[in-house]
Amino acid sequence: MNERGIIELLGSMTAAAAPDLLQGIGDDCAVIRKNSRQSWLVTMDTLVESVHFDRNWHPPDKLGRKAVSVNVSDIAAMGGIPVFVFLSLGLPAGFDAGWLTSFSRGLAEACREFGCILAGGDTVRSPAGVLVTVAVIGEMPTRQVVLRSGAKAGDAVWVSGYPGRAAAGLELCRLGRTEDPAFAGLAEAHLNPQPRLELARRLAENRLVHSMMDLSDGLATDLAHICTRSKVGAVIDPAGLRMDPLPAAAGLLDKDPDQWILSGGEDFELVFTAPARHSAAIVDLAARLEVPVTRIGRIDDSQGVRAARPHPDGNHAVEIDISFSGYDHFPEPR
Amino acid sequence: MNERGIIELLGSMTAAAAPDLLQGIGDDCAVIRKNSRQSWLVTMDTLVESVHFDRNWHPPDKLGRKAVSVNVSDIAAMGGIPVFVFLSLGLPAGFDAGWLTSFSRGLAEACREFGCILAGGDTVRSPAGVLVTVAVIGEMPTRQVVLRSGAKAGDAVWVSGYPGRAAAGLELCRLGRTEDPAFAGLAEAHLNPQPRLELARRLAENRLVHSMMDLSDGLATDLAHICTRSKVGAVIDPAGLRMDPLPAAAGLLDKDPDQWILSGGEDFELVFTAPARHSAAIVDLAARLEVPVTRIGRIDDSQGVRAARPHPDGNHAVEIDISFSGYDHFPEPR
Repeated sequence: MNERGIIELLGSMTAAAAPDLLQGIGDDCAVIRKNSRQSWLVTMDTLVESVHFDRNWHPPDKLGRKAVSVNVSDIAAMGGIPVFVFLSLGLPAGFDAGWLTSFSRGLAEACREFGCILAGGDTVRSPAGVLVTVAVIGEMPTRQVVLRSGAKAGDAVWVSGYPGRAAAGLELCRLGRTEDPAFAGLAEAHLNPQPRLELARRLAENRLVHSMMDLSDGLATDLAHICTRSKVGAVIDPAGLRMDPLPAAAGLLDKDPDQWILSGGEDFELVFTAPARHSAAIVDLAARLEVPVTRIGRIDDSQGVRAARPHPDGNHAVEIDISFSGYDHFPEPR
Repeated sequence: MNERGIIELLGSMTAAAAPDLLQGIGDDCAVIRKNSRQSWLVTMDTLVESVHFDRNWHPPDKLGRKAVSVNVSDIAAMGGIPVFVFLSLGLPAGFDAGWLTSFSRGLAEACREFGCILAGGDTVRSPAGVLVTVAVIGEMPTRQVVLRSGAKAGDAVWVSGYPGRAAAGLELCRLGRTEDPAFAGLAEAHLNPQPRLELARRLAENRLVHSMMDLSDGLATDLAHICTRSKVGAVIDPAGLRMDPLPAAAGLLDKDPDQWILSGGEDFELVFTAPARHSAAIVDLAARLEVPVTRIGRIDDSQGVRAARPHPDGNHAVEIDISFSGYDHFPEPR
């Protein structure tokens, strides 16, 4: 059973309607009606040591920040703003008090930066390694909520930033190859990702996008989620995302940069789809916020996600199905 | 640094006020204003394999139930009702699909029983053992919220059920001594605790209590939390709680039943304080709901929690300070 299978099983067993639940399982956040105009957004994510991070090279303050950031990114993906943070922290016996102080400082700093406050949680002992679960409650006007299910044939597909950087950074950290300052930004993309809160909020507020989510499992998988829920397909060309220093790092480590771009996880950039007539407004907004955005393809009325690659004859492109080829915590044997 | 120290550190670093946050860190739930009359309650708890449970003898459906129940118990402790459930599930590679199906069935059943629905969450890989974090959002009228900080000198101290049963049950499960049907209820208290949702809701609705919390770390520690936050003290006599089959199990395992009663954790019973004039109403309500309640002591204007024990001369009682002598995930060396 892979990750989607687990989520489908849980969803099928517990499916139930509630008048105030506007969106349940299946999007970046649950959406709960607060009043006639506003909704709460709720998301929860767990970071597990030796799966998501390694204390040997993850500075504790950056881990504290990241635990907040990855959840704030889910709030951003709907177009909302974060308000309350809840932390469940698992610590091994004999943990280092200095480590905890630094972790807490990073978490507090991220809360302040994103305008939210720690409102509760619990601490437990962990038999091995640190466990960090954070839940964030956000808020936004209900009519501005951007779901995964709104993509329409003809939409342009956009991404913020340069996906693949976090996967490259993780590989550099793993191999201890972080000495070259040219690659510092890649390591930082893994250690301390920046949620695109302001860009997402303005895209939603100005009704510029039809669908949006954040990139946690890789572009190929996350865009496939948008396509499945919107009952559309997508064709993308990753060429525009091969931005230095990613190709240089790929060369150094003998990796395929497109693999990082399409299947690398945990970038916490945004992927969104928008009517072509909004392209100029999107470019203008992103420029004002100094966030790079790249138009990487289009939505059509097929199914799945295909990547356009140049044919060896050099005269035309071929399309390869890459749906759900990103990160899966529970990959099935092929 | 012990468990209270960790929570104080996190609280001090992130302390911030928010207009809608009526109660932050330090009670069973955070309380968030929903509208002029209603509030949301938010709680989150993690169950870690080999710390909180053992898959070798914890049936997966009961574990699924318990993950919901322990959080519903926090909602109950404020006087609220649960509405939305969020699950973050960590599973080891190669987990058993049948185990997951049974776990999910138990979780779904508990959600139905308590009238709440699974609204979101995530799944991650765990390097070793199952990790279950559940967050629950509940709701209630703001003016009925019962905090830990409301106890007043002169209040009677009450507990529901018979604390110590879960600790005894855990010990029986650990030792594989669950064959005797006389002890089945003790094992069940650990494997499948029942939150006192209805009793707590009616106590709050009828304004019968000044303070309330649920028993997760043991009576001595949890009542000490009420005393600290209410700036009062308490004297209790555990004799009224020595109820069969607890003393028999203690005899079998050569344990002190009072140790289980005062320091055993995870009973998810209620401890509450109430003006003496409400005693008859409390007894009457509990009888109608068929929940045992026992008056175990009184609140005074001292500090800490003391247990009354008979003096060896048989003529008078001595009081022993037992504050915070319950379960601590991070005990400090004495």
